[in-house]
Amino acid sequence: MRQRVYMDHNATAPLRDEARAAMIAAMDVVGNPSSVHAEGRAAKALIERARAQVAAALGADGADVIFTSGATEAAALACAGRGFASAPVEHEAVAAWCDGALDVSPAGAVAVADPARSALQLANSETGVVQDLPGDIAVCDMTQGFGKLPVAFNWSGARMALISAHKLGGPKGIGALVVRRGTDIAAQIKGGGQEMGRRSGTENIIGVAGFGAAAEAAARDLEAGTWDRVEKLRNILEKTIAAAENKTIFVGKESRRLPNTCCMLTPGWKGETQVMAMDLAGYAVSAGSACSSGKVRASAVLRAMGFGEADAASAIRVSLGPQTTEDEIMRFAETWLAHLDRHRARSGAA
Amino acid sequence: MRQRVYMDHNATAPLRDEARAAMIAAMDVVGNPSSVHAEGRAAKALIERARAQVAAALGADGADVIFTSGATEAAALACAGRGFASAPVEHEAVAAWCDGALDVSPAGAVAVADPARSALQLANSETGVVQDLPGDIAVCDMTQGFGKLPVAFNWSGARMALISAHKLGGPKGIGALVVRRGTDIAAQIKGGGQEMGRRSGTENIIGVAGFGAAAEAAARDLEAGTWDRVEKLRNILEKTIAAAENKTIFVGKESRRLPNTCCMLTPGWKGETQVMAMDLAGYAVSAGSACSSGKVRASAVLRAMGFGEADAASAIRVSLGPQTTEDEIMRFAETWLAHLDRHRARSGAA
Repeated sequence: MRQRVYMDHNATAPLRDEARAAMIAAMDVVGNPSSVHAEGRAAKALIERARAQVAAALGADGADVIFTSGATEAAALACAGRGFASAPVEHEAVAAWCDGALDVSPAGAVAVADPARSALQLANSETGVVQDLPGDIAVCDMTQGFGKLPVAFNWSGARMALISAHKLGGPKGIGALVVRRGTDIAAQIKGGGQEMGRRSGTENIIGVAGFGAAAEAAARDLEAGTWDRVEKLRNILEKTIAAAENKTIFVGKESRRLPNTCCMLTPGWKGETQVMAMDLAGYAVSAGSACSSGKVRASAVLRAMGFGEADAASAIRVSLGPQTTEDEIMRFAETWLAHLDRHRARSGAA
Repeated sequence: MRQRVYMDHNATAPLRDEARAAMIAAMDVVGNPSSVHAEGRAAKALIERARAQVAAALGADGADVIFTSGATEAAALACAGRGFASAPVEHEAVAAWCDGALDVSPAGAVAVADPARSALQLANSETGVVQDLPGDIAVCDMTQGFGKLPVAFNWSGARMALISAHKLGGPKGIGALVVRRGTDIAAQIKGGGQEMGRRSGTENIIGVAGFGAAAEAAARDLEAGTWDRVEKLRNILEKTIAAAENKTIFVGKESRRLPNTCCMLTPGWKGETQVMAMDLAGYAVSAGSACSSGKVRASAVLRAMGFGEADAASAIRVSLGPQTTEDEIMRFAETWLAHLDRHRARSGAA
């Protein structure tokens, strides 16, 4: 049997070897980081080491990295009760707390009126569209950009940033809210006073260790040009499909995008159907965001960019990773085109 | 060099082999549980398997197990904004959200007036004192009891229960809120709608896998009588010390207690000093709760039981685990008594 091809890295990336090794090592650390004895201090040291790794990888030296259970929790910590403005392209974890009325251009660019009272993502998970961050944005969701784009928190102008380990090869269930030193953060989870009183609860030290190691490895990969290679593959994919099929729209192509992301909209062919067909053929891709358990509906992101309901429901996202090969890309394109032909033959829409 | 002896299992327990194996296996599960493709479905299946393991171990079949980042987050989810009554013996993660005015007897028993509007722990982390749960208690913090005591959520009468993996040999950073099926829970972390909309965020699948395996193993150990053996060791420890030293009080001894917990109060000898001395001698024990980063103050639990400020600051907690040996117990008692002698010689308080 042919091995499956995983092309859904924006949903979650496979665990990096460096993260795995750090996590297995952390399994032997017995103590509670809040304990004062040797075992506790060793656990505490491991957390602080990972915190420094994450800060360095994000260009956030001197900022406060508050570990959370993921970017979703970080979004609640940053946004709940603040009444920030946002656009409908934000992830639901941010949108849930914001007034999502900001305008989005057909190319995916968000028009921010009052940065200090707004949340704006660095890059969109579905289309890969990268935003120009205005200075002094209140909250920037860097979840998809961190690890794939050169980004430095300290230079971004953002007051707060959300990041997640599992999008860059760390474990799921760990992330952080990064804030300029001294930013006032009202804890939402209270108790033992961990994370300087901003986020209580015994620390996920195995996850934190994996996050630190993954962030460090991701920064090294980025520096080494890994994503330039991935971007070339993404462009080959789009050219190959465009050469054979002229109805498919590559959403956001005119904008700066994440190097690994291809959002392909083929009018009349439901994204959901495409995902299932490709899954059966051995390829993992997605329709819209994966972070919406069980929901099937047209992408709010594509709707915000001006696509109609039916078109917005006819897109899939192919998101590549550092291990993706040209052979996989070419086989995917061939398989997808064959399924498109079959779909058109069936629906009489040739 | 003599190996260190870890006697702080109520702060956190070493990772069980079963949990380690399950976590390492979960590292190979690539997908996001919210994705519909094969990789996503495999991740989802892993979570549901662990959920069933936790429910079975807790006697909570048919109840809803909502995975959280730990018992602290579960406490916020259960208690925030509800105005429940509680006693000052509750963990800070619960106390932070409650009106802590309920009476505590000198033996540590809490008098609950209105169960349906109150939070009550199953067992205290510092003294090990076990509460008689009144029927229909709104929230029961089972964190310390789960895995050490025979307890069934479905028979406890509790409407909601808090549990944590790392107290029973699972990883830190994962826990759950367990509720009777259909209980209305207002999400505090919103976004992708995971955990039936009650707790969003991509699931910590490695942690969840470890929790499930640890809970299953803990239930098996409990059934096999592991804690009866531990209780005997705890009693030997207390008898040995009592035979040599008549000023030390074993707090809660007259009550039903966790089998592994010994809270020793020695008037005039600060708990903090004892912990440091024993740490240097190779033994990890604690003064009060470990879940309070960097704080050093007299135990609120002992104060609530009627001890004065100075006495409450003169206690240590020794909490044993399934691997504790009689030799370790005897060496600890000998070392501790020698340090007590030295302390008295120094302070002229012989």
